[in-house]
Amino acid sequence: MTKRRILGAEVVATGAELLQGRTLNRHGYTLGGLLVGVGIPLQRETVVPDDVTLIREAVASALERSELVFVTGGLGPTEDDVTREAVAAVTGRDVVSHAVADAHLQAYFAKINREPTAAQCRQANVLAGAEVFMNPVGIAPGQCLTLENGRSLWLLPGPPRELNGLIKTAVTPWLAAQVARADLHQRVFRILGHSESRVQDRLRTEAEIPAGVAVAYCARPGSVELRFHGPEAAVNRLTDWVREQYAGDLLNETGETVEEVIGRMLTERGETLATAESCTAGGIAERVTDVPGSSVYFVGGVVAYANAVKMRDLGVEESLLAAHGAVSEAVAREMAAGVRARMQTTWGLSITGVAGPGGGTPEKPVGLFYVGLAGAAGSQAVRFQVTGDRQQIRDHGIQRALEVLWRGIKISWGHSR
Amino acid sequence: MTKRRILGAEVVATGAELLQGRTLNRHGYTLGGLLVGVGIPLQRETVVPDDVTLIREAVASALERSELVFVTGGLGPTEDDVTREAVAAVTGRDVVSHAVADAHLQAYFAKINREPTAAQCRQANVLAGAEVFMNPVGIAPGQCLTLENGRSLWLLPGPPRELNGLIKTAVTPWLAAQVARADLHQRVFRILGHSESRVQDRLRTEAEIPAGVAVAYCARPGSVELRFHGPEAAVNRLTDWVREQYAGDLLNETGETVEEVIGRMLTERGETLATAESCTAGGIAERVTDVPGSSVYFVGGVVAYANAVKMRDLGVEESLLAAHGAVSEAVAREMAAGVRARMQTTWGLSITGVAGPGGGTPEKPVGLFYVGLAGAAGSQAVRFQVTGDRQQIRDHGIQRALEVLWRGIKISWGHSR
Repeated sequence: MTKRRILGAEVVATGAELLQGRTLNRHGYTLGGLLVGVGIPLQRETVVPDDVTLIREAVASALERSELVFVTGGLGPTEDDVTREAVAAVTGRDVVSHAVADAHLQAYFAKINREPTAAQCRQANVLAGAEVFMNPVGIAPGQCLTLENGRSLWLLPGPPRELNGLIKTAVTPWLAAQVARADLHQRVFRILGHSESRVQDRLRTEAEIPAGVAVAYCARPGSVELRFHGPEAAVNRLTDWVREQYAGDLLNETGETVEEVIGRMLTERGETLATAESCTAGGIAERVTDVPGSSVYFVGGVVAYANAVKMRDLGVEESLLAAHGAVSEAVAREMAAGVRARMQTTWGLSITGVAGPGGGTPEKPVGLFYVGLAGAAGSQAVRFQVTGDRQQIRDHGIQRALEVLWRGIKISWGHSR
Repeated sequence: MTKRRILGAEVVATGAELLQGRTLNRHGYTLGGLLVGVGIPLQRETVVPDDVTLIREAVASALERSELVFVTGGLGPTEDDVTREAVAAVTGRDVVSHAVADAHLQAYFAKINREPTAAQCRQANVLAGAEVFMNPVGIAPGQCLTLENGRSLWLLPGPPRELNGLIKTAVTPWLAAQVARADLHQRVFRILGHSESRVQDRLRTEAEIPAGVAVAYCARPGSVELRFHGPEAAVNRLTDWVREQYAGDLLNETGETVEEVIGRMLTERGETLATAESCTAGGIAERVTDVPGSSVYFVGGVVAYANAVKMRDLGVEESLLAAHGAVSEAVAREMAAGVRARMQTTWGLSITGVAGPGGGTPEKPVGLFYVGLAGAAGSQAVRFQVTGDRQQIRDHGIQRALEVLWRGIKISWGHSR
């Protein structure tokens, strides 16, 4: 496959639910972040309902403007899944059944002891001549058509798990092979505890960014993913600057998530973890166990929503709750120490806070939370105050708690129990 | 103001950050939900970067297709905020300073003891002849232009707080005054335990859908949202059919989520809930507490990842684990009864299963899980087997567990403790 430079990309996201306030559309967000990482600008996203004519028009004009077009959604079994037919009309290709995709579909239904309906079998249909990529978590495959004019047209399923699965297994390697980047060098960093805008300001003002280097940012609650893309020497110069400036907060240069890094450290050291959660109500345990194999180091946790549970199951003194309130440094420390003792783990991680919308006071406003960490060296708690809605505050709480645990494990290196 | 029928709306969202994986675009999602409520279909959303030419083209073609166009973003102080100029070029209107908006701006900066820069003062500029709506949480006002051809063009700021503020204070009342909706009727249903494609098959084959009725589906893990939109008599006929066919599985006709319905039922009855989770590791507790005010009925939970925790904290007999294994009906029942007893709640809800990717066996494959429910009438467990990746299996587990709880609460009506 000859390498070439792709000048611009577009996303056409299909689905009435994306335009009716029922499903939040993340397709352009996800693909845009991926494309920035390989130096291809996403120039436009168009969202249209499940309508053959509207999809056909949107895809046709996208192909006039851009060399790389991703069409997402509308590959399912229902009658409003018409993306294949719309793209067939634009490209003049036939829709044909694909043997491997059909075998994949039959196996899928055999596994759940169900007979696929005729409608469900449509999901094995592809455009004639398309490169086909099996769906790692669903039925409808990904498809990539290379058109006569050299432009590339991808069809990807809409459900987030399926889209993300195919982005990882099919689109990412395809891009790597397609994009001419022999002359380009890439680095990725994940920095904890800094906002995107501050990292951006410092890069702009303190590190002069050499010409030809593309810098991409991706904000996560409590962390920033930073990507450099350009000539090797220039990228290496910026890399040194980042390593020096963010030494203590540099999670990794691999793009690993904080829960993956924590899992690796705990596994290497044969250490274990238990959680005690109030405001996040199990969200920390869920994030920790998103990592396959986490049962090696994650023992369990207590969701201590009511104060009675904090006292009975975590040994928090009633007097402490009375004196400081449930959302306090003292209670966070007791919760962490309590769950560590009860579950007999190396580490106890806790959180207590006000997620809102109700329950805030002038002294304990919505968005205030404390993260507690207990280990062989004793217990500590850190105070955080963030803004946002209930879900945003909980996401921050989960992220900050994992950050506190990561720092704690790093520091303790040497005196594990 | 004479009422009229608006046939179609579009959103043009502007901002490079929306196309680079840096900011998740919620504009079409938010406005689409609002418009569905007043019977106006959002026909398209176009996302373009901060570029005068691209914005101008996108707004011009949106105005050709639709009677109502919302342009979001690009009203700020920086040089890449060019939406006013782009729309001026499309509509032939001048950009003029607005006295009230300027007074609002001056007051804003006076409050923070700052002198507005010349760039910041641009935010008081509007399109000549626009109806202007003050920004309740920021500086740049909302603007609504009525064009010669009767079409309406809104300019709204992009930051979520400002956009949502103006949607509430300006757009919503404006829509109510504009839209004639007397002849349109809408119904929404949430049906549990059926797949989108099977619900659609039955609707198509068994209930004949009257002309003029729009049917929309939205799949959620373990549930389907069904919407009818059309003439009242026809919608009511379909409504009767749905109520009859899905009586036992009809969660509600309000669009409430299962966790919201559970919360309402428990609150009404003064009942309480505790959870014991293995494979979902806190995910059920997190979903339950997504509902504001859930602390009234949700007491707490145990994340019993290791068998030691199932035994020590939930009183599961070692012999039971040895005889049936952790993933079994007997253990699910013991976990539910154990957490109910320990937390002294009306209900105990449990789950144990194999989320994968590892840990599956021929007898206990990946995707197998049991949901246990304990109440005043005793305990039961239900077996489920699903396919998918680790996250999908966990999502199914959470959804199915909530479904089991909902059915249990419904059945028990009458003999609460």
